[in-house]
Amino acid sequence: MQWLSSTTNTFLFLVFSCHFGSFNQIGMKEIAIGIDIGGTNTKFGLVDRSGEILVQDSISTMSDCNVKDFIKYLKEKLTPVIESQDNITIKGVGIGAPNANYYKGTIEYAPNISWGEFIYFKEAFAQYFDYPMVLTNDANAAALGEMVYGNAQGMDDFILITLGTGLGSGIVVNGKVVYGHDGFAGELGHTKAKPDGRLCGCGRRGCLETYVSATGLVRTIFKLMAEETDPSDLRQVPFDQLTAKMITEAATKEDPLAIKAFEYTGKILGENLADSVLHTSPEAIFLFGGLVRAGEYLFTPTKKYMEKSIFKMFKNKVKLLPSGLMDKNAAVLGASALVWKEFD
Amino acid sequence: MQWLSSTTNTFLFLVFSCHFGSFNQIGMKEIAIGIDIGGTNTKFGLVDRSGEILVQDSISTMSDCNVKDFIKYLKEKLTPVIESQDNITIKGVGIGAPNANYYKGTIEYAPNISWGEFIYFKEAFAQYFDYPMVLTNDANAAALGEMVYGNAQGMDDFILITLGTGLGSGIVVNGKVVYGHDGFAGELGHTKAKPDGRLCGCGRRGCLETYVSATGLVRTIFKLMAEETDPSDLRQVPFDQLTAKMITEAATKEDPLAIKAFEYTGKILGENLADSVLHTSPEAIFLFGGLVRAGEYLFTPTKKYMEKSIFKMFKNKVKLLPSGLMDKNAAVLGASALVWKEFD
Repeated sequence: MQWLSSTTNTFLFLVFSCHFGSFNQIGMKEIAIGIDIGGTNTKFGLVDRSGEILVQDSISTMSDCNVKDFIKYLKEKLTPVIESQDNITIKGVGIGAPNANYYKGTIEYAPNISWGEFIYFKEAFAQYFDYPMVLTNDANAAALGEMVYGNAQGMDDFILITLGTGLGSGIVVNGKVVYGHDGFAGELGHTKAKPDGRLCGCGRRGCLETYVSATGLVRTIFKLMAEETDPSDLRQVPFDQLTAKMITEAATKEDPLAIKAFEYTGKILGENLADSVLHTSPEAIFLFGGLVRAGEYLFTPTKKYMEKSIFKMFKNKVKLLPSGLMDKNAAVLGASALVWKEFD
Repeated sequence: MQWLSSTTNTFLFLVFSCHFGSFNQIGMKEIAIGIDIGGTNTKFGLVDRSGEILVQDSISTMSDCNVKDFIKYLKEKLTPVIESQDNITIKGVGIGAPNANYYKGTIEYAPNISWGEFIYFKEAFAQYFDYPMVLTNDANAAALGEMVYGNAQGMDDFILITLGTGLGSGIVVNGKVVYGHDGFAGELGHTKAKPDGRLCGCGRRGCLETYVSATGLVRTIFKLMAEETDPSDLRQVPFDQLTAKMITEAATKEDPLAIKAFEYTGKILGENLADSVLHTSPEAIFLFGGLVRAGEYLFTPTKKYMEKSIFKMFKNKVKLLPSGLMDKNAAVLGASALVWKEFD
């Protein structure tokens, strides 16, 4: 492994950059390191331009420790992985993290990471690593992954929705992720889906992610148990044990209550996407995350209600598609995509 | 007047362009022609880089005629105005029009212009004028005007809301108007303000502009006449004669019903802006149009409810400001701003 931007190579780097856009030593493969910091685990991988992950691993996020201890630990684990690879040059490091700020290199008020409320991550990272690094929130990274390796290749304007514990989103306009004035654009999970609706973790009521997410789906099935009389095996499961995965599996087995839960979820998502379309007029909207495995049970009502609600100029124009990275290590791929977008 | 891009000047133009970004003959003032096509009248003006309008005029839009007849008529009226000015060179023409498509150069389904449903305006224009021309919808042009000459100078991320008969909007991200995949981004007037709310001209119910616009304000005052018992001179005026201007004037004279109407309008606008902020994280939101003359009667409730509804990351961060072009010929300035943005 050789690190290109050492001072001895700077002149050569500049000369080559002028001619070829990015430097690539003969016989050496350019690699992006993708790191995805989650509340529990941090995944990382070495990724080439085609999206092939050469090697990957994960470590504990140690979210109850100091951020410096975490980065030190990350270096201990990452360095041998890099050194195990022959004939590669590291282009840079891309990191996706919850509530990460692209401009400031900070992680701010991330609910599941206890390193501190306001973490100067980029500064801390630079104390242990010499690689150029770029940080953004996980949903923005996922949007970049979709653009570089997934189903949004060649698209300049799209929205990616990640359906996990909450609802994340990355908005791409003119081929670039929208960060906005302060780096926190694209928080569609907190748009208002229902006035005075469900209580959200953010303290407000009616946020989209309280309906459209893994936890939102679980809340919906309990609402439907109260309102409807359809028989369902899910009625045997207590609230604290019921998961979105169980509802998704029930839907694929034609459980009527589970199907209704997806219909309700799709209605709210579709109606809200119709409003998002009015903002940035995307070519497509991609859905990513476990709920997407419900397939048509999710996509059909979402598309139906999106088209029903949408302004006439956009009718039947906006594609609703699954992510192309569903069966891959999308978090690592997304983080690595940052590198090609940023340092090429 | 000399037209720079004649073939004889092409070589010189290219040489100068490489060195100075834009060509400017010694002693000649570069001018943008701004044209704003409205349902009734079309305004035009010759504008310099500082936003000074050298000369301006208006003609009938002849919206019930053929688009070619209109452009021919426009040329007859515009040519002597251009020729009356000494020592100018025309950089290009910017045109703002309702439902205009930046990419295609078309005007599509504009409700108040009857030249046709789908008008190839740019093509028709090129048959009569040799100037480079760029077309966009009127609200996008207003946003550009704000950026080039108004209160958004130096801002890369902002939203401009125009409050006229309807509600128009222009969204700027990374210093560029967002057109989106098909050129119709930024139609915030048709986001859903209330489920099953007021009937909109677009055929749907609850659109933001049915509440927040000149006509929306008039509808609101009649709703309040029914619901409240406050005395008001406005109770003497029949629906078809009551205007937003009358309500605005009544509010500035402390008419309690008019003040409540602005409170209601501001609440709905503020709550909806909180959702728009989540999309593109603007530095500021500008309000433009006659209703803005109500000043604090509009701004105070809008700001209050925007902050009340907004996601914590954006609290007290987004400025709510009046347009800087309120007392100027904003439509012509906005259209002319397109030229500097597009052809520089």
